Amino acid sequence: MSSIFTKIIQGDIPSYKIAENEFCYAFLDIFPLQRGHILVVPKKEIDLIFDLEDSDYNELMSFSRKIANAIKKAIPCERVGMTVIGLEVPHAHVHLIPINNVNDINFANEKLKLSNEEFKSIAELISNNL
Amino acid sequence: MSSIFTKIIQGDIPSYKIAENEFCYAFLDIFPLQRGHILVVPKKEIDLIFDLEDSDYNELMSFSRKIANAIKKAIPCERVGMTVIGLEVPHAHVHLIPINNVNDINFANEKLKLSNEEFKSIAELISNNL
Repeated sequence: MSSIFTKIIQGDIPSYKIAENEFCYAFLDIFPLQRGHILVVPKKEIDLIFDLEDSDYNELMSFSRKIANAIKKAIPCERVGMTVIGLEVPHAHVHLIPINNVNDINFANEKLKLSNEEFKSIAELISNNL
Repeated sequence: MSSIFTKIIQGDIPSYKIAENEFCYAFLDIFPLQRGHILVVPKKEIDLIFDLEDSDYNELMSFSRKIANAIKKAIPCERVGMTVIGLEVPHAHVHLIPINNVNDINFANEKLKLSNEEFKSIAELISNNL
């Protein structure tokens, strides 16, 4: 069965898409730690990020960097943090999170609850800075 | 003034070195969240990881992947997490941490206190798996 991220990539589950290319897809995490928290996933469905082939891994990291720089322009923050944990969904994914202090990227924190309009406006803001 | 990481790379401050190449240096974090917690830094001293030039960024990410795969072989764990935060030292660095659950990579946790012998034995174990 396809992972939830593959369903999102294929459009079977809706997402607040930021960008995609041949290899990767970026969209807003709907359980965000911060406004502008984005997930970047390889289109190839593989559990462990470090098991990706060289070229796929490099594409994912380069694409993540482009998205991170767009977040930095769009969302006021000290810098953009990057985290790969991946224990919940067995499809490699990179978290990109605008942060001002170390607690902003603490996954034990309660997630933000945002409205559809807020998600749409954040996605548009970041996409416009790509 | 050179960053603490540049001093480590230059050997002015001792470290439990894991590996280095022309562009990167990997060593044990002496305030580890878990046994096998490693820092990978670019030899070029730059604050924000996403400000690195393409080739330097790609080298750092590729090198981090090699180190992560060595950690995975050396340390019993579910997977290796990767985090870039970077608020404390203005020299880009990638944390690689063996994890079994999301709390294992929580930077709010108390750091482990290990002896010199423990650090040396962990460094040797990981180096031997490169």
